[in-house]
Amino acid sequence: MSLEIKINAERLWQSLEEMAAVGATEAGGNCRLALTSEDKAGRDLFCQWAREAGCDVTVDEVGNLFVHRAGTNASQAPVMTGSHLDTQPTGGRYDGVYGVLAGLEVLRALNDHGVTTNRPVEVVVWSNEEGSRFQPGMTGSGVFCGEFSRDTVYATCDEQGISYLEALDAIGARGAPPAKPRDIHTYIEAHIEQGPVLEAEDKTIGVVTGIQGIKWFKARVVGVNAHAGTTPMEVRRDPLVAAGRMVDQISQITKKLRPDAVATVGMFTALPGSVNVINQEVRFSIDLRCPDESALNDLGNQLQAECLQIAYDTGVQLELEEIWNVPPTVFPESAVSVVETATNELGLSNRRIVSGAGHDAKYLANISPTAMIFVPCKDGISHNEAESILPEHAAAGAEVLLQSILKLANQ
Amino acid sequence: MSLEIKINAERLWQSLEEMAAVGATEAGGNCRLALTSEDKAGRDLFCQWAREAGCDVTVDEVGNLFVHRAGTNASQAPVMTGSHLDTQPTGGRYDGVYGVLAGLEVLRALNDHGVTTNRPVEVVVWSNEEGSRFQPGMTGSGVFCGEFSRDTVYATCDEQGISYLEALDAIGARGAPPAKPRDIHTYIEAHIEQGPVLEAEDKTIGVVTGIQGIKWFKARVVGVNAHAGTTPMEVRRDPLVAAGRMVDQISQITKKLRPDAVATVGMFTALPGSVNVINQEVRFSIDLRCPDESALNDLGNQLQAECLQIAYDTGVQLELEEIWNVPPTVFPESAVSVVETATNELGLSNRRIVSGAGHDAKYLANISPTAMIFVPCKDGISHNEAESILPEHAAAGAEVLLQSILKLANQ
Repeated sequence: MSLEIKINAERLWQSLEEMAAVGATEAGGNCRLALTSEDKAGRDLFCQWAREAGCDVTVDEVGNLFVHRAGTNASQAPVMTGSHLDTQPTGGRYDGVYGVLAGLEVLRALNDHGVTTNRPVEVVVWSNEEGSRFQPGMTGSGVFCGEFSRDTVYATCDEQGISYLEALDAIGARGAPPAKPRDIHTYIEAHIEQGPVLEAEDKTIGVVTGIQGIKWFKARVVGVNAHAGTTPMEVRRDPLVAAGRMVDQISQITKKLRPDAVATVGMFTALPGSVNVINQEVRFSIDLRCPDESALNDLGNQLQAECLQIAYDTGVQLELEEIWNVPPTVFPESAVSVVETATNELGLSNRRIVSGAGHDAKYLANISPTAMIFVPCKDGISHNEAESILPEHAAAGAEVLLQSILKLANQ
Repeated sequence: MSLEIKINAERLWQSLEEMAAVGATEAGGNCRLALTSEDKAGRDLFCQWAREAGCDVTVDEVGNLFVHRAGTNASQAPVMTGSHLDTQPTGGRYDGVYGVLAGLEVLRALNDHGVTTNRPVEVVVWSNEEGSRFQPGMTGSGVFCGEFSRDTVYATCDEQGISYLEALDAIGARGAPPAKPRDIHTYIEAHIEQGPVLEAEDKTIGVVTGIQGIKWFKARVVGVNAHAGTTPMEVRRDPLVAAGRMVDQISQITKKLRPDAVATVGMFTALPGSVNVINQEVRFSIDLRCPDESALNDLGNQLQAECLQIAYDTGVQLELEEIWNVPPTVFPESAVSVVETATNELGLSNRRIVSGAGHDAKYLANISPTAMIFVPCKDGISHNEAESILPEHAAAGAEVLLQSILKLANQ
């Protein structure tokens, strides 16, 4: 009975602690920007652990690291798990790292119990997931899955003008094997939720059914700059009054129409921004996300229509442009149900959840059956040095990953 | 019959043009910041004209310039008119200048017609009205009227660390006479409206009944910074949604409750202001003005209460502080009616109006009967190089000033 095969919770936590010492920040977080010496130190530590676990490590041409644990049948497509080790500049200890080290713990646990699976099991460290140093992010998995060309990624430069290729070679992280799609039985990524839902509902595991679609809009509201003291209210064309109402309505309409969608105005600038001057212009962004593609499109249209109506009502001009559109990813039920079944067999409280953030699993879903496992994080805080998870949640997620992989790798 | 005494409209316009050549900007405006060499050149030109008109010029200890035209009775308090010659950095040709040169034109017209008034007539150029170089503004009239101490103003420094006193001496604009209240029969200031009301209603003259009261508030709205993709709408504490609703309601409530009040949110900053991040904090200003003191206080209280309610409804914290409060100035009916009668006798279309902006007349009203005359300006635009008035409006305002002064100076 596979439930007798257990991960070692202390060892997993200890490894998380040791990795957190690499590129540690004073405030208790991590700074391991992609392809820096800190990233190299993290990769080296991970490779050392993988080799100690008796696995082969290969690095592909864009720096993705693959740890291979053989199965009884070498010709069969592997089950793959993993995530990333690079962080934001003031990042946390668990974003990405948790998925990588939970995967490593699965390999170690299989060793502990002398288990040989039918299919090979691979743990992957995707290169440059965060995109803090080289934009966009998720380029390691993106090239591997055919989303980006290798040479485009190679040519991407950081703010100092150093190219991805130069940085890759500088830390000796460029391997020979091409980064290209290959046959993968199933990809399962464990990750911290990066949101508050599991904690708020006191659930240990999020069974992830997909990744929200996302649209970004940029808005420019143009009014008439005038003297705050001498311009009667009824003749004003105040872009800030218009934009303020838009922000409020974007939130209210989204809440009312789609409880599963989120809309955020993050960037917001009023010009000239002087106390006694009616502004000339306001610029703002809209970040809109929804797990359902047609609902995302409909909601985007409705928010645009509402903003145009407000512009009309307030006598200002509005330029509203969709600048980014990524359709939702829906994980196949076959993969999701493996995770859900494993979670239930382990007796862990859980709920189905849609990922609000992007992950390497998004690209993997284009080339293989894919699912994800979420564990709660404190206050939903992520991309922040204060990122925090409980050891029992770390262990629970790794148990689910182990049981899911056992099911899949023995198919 | 005094209506036979007329100003010379061409001469007035010619003087406005000549003064506009001093510190002219490429875009057709003026830059004569207080106590700079450009300000000195403007003062020198004005003093030359005053002496050519046979008047004495004196300069007081803070640089206010007084042009004195004797009356038959030297012991009687003078009728005073004037404004300022300093401008904003990208200022217009008429703000302040018009009142000074309309006053000069009155003296010239009295000379043309060989009129000697009973009381002396004085034209004053108040120093540092704009406050662009030395903050606050209106310090020349402010010291004269006992609002500020001379030494406080002397010690005020510009951004280069040059004190008012140093700047005053650098252009030789410090005189011996103390700047302090003295007996003035009536002060009448002509000025461009700096707002759109007269133009919109096709009125030639604004009979100014006072200056609005003003309150400034600063607001700090604090929410919870979180990930735009992973934080459900219902758990958000988004300070920008709260602040947007506040801005909208400040405008709507002001319109509804007091058609004579104006409320403006000018400064508005959202932090951190990133596309995919729910903001942590929003800071904004409120500029609230009303001609009626108790209405200003009531409205201020109502706007504060509404903002607090919105903060409660949206789950954010609000700090809202009144940082400035200047009660309205009401000019005495005795002075206002002199202007109104003169305007009607001249057959000029007019309306009573409250000044939305501050003027030196505000401080003069504390020590003497005071009134103002407004003329229309194009599109209500001021503090801007595009400031524009019509020659016939300039002439009409000067005629009203002349007739008002004749009435007052012969009392």
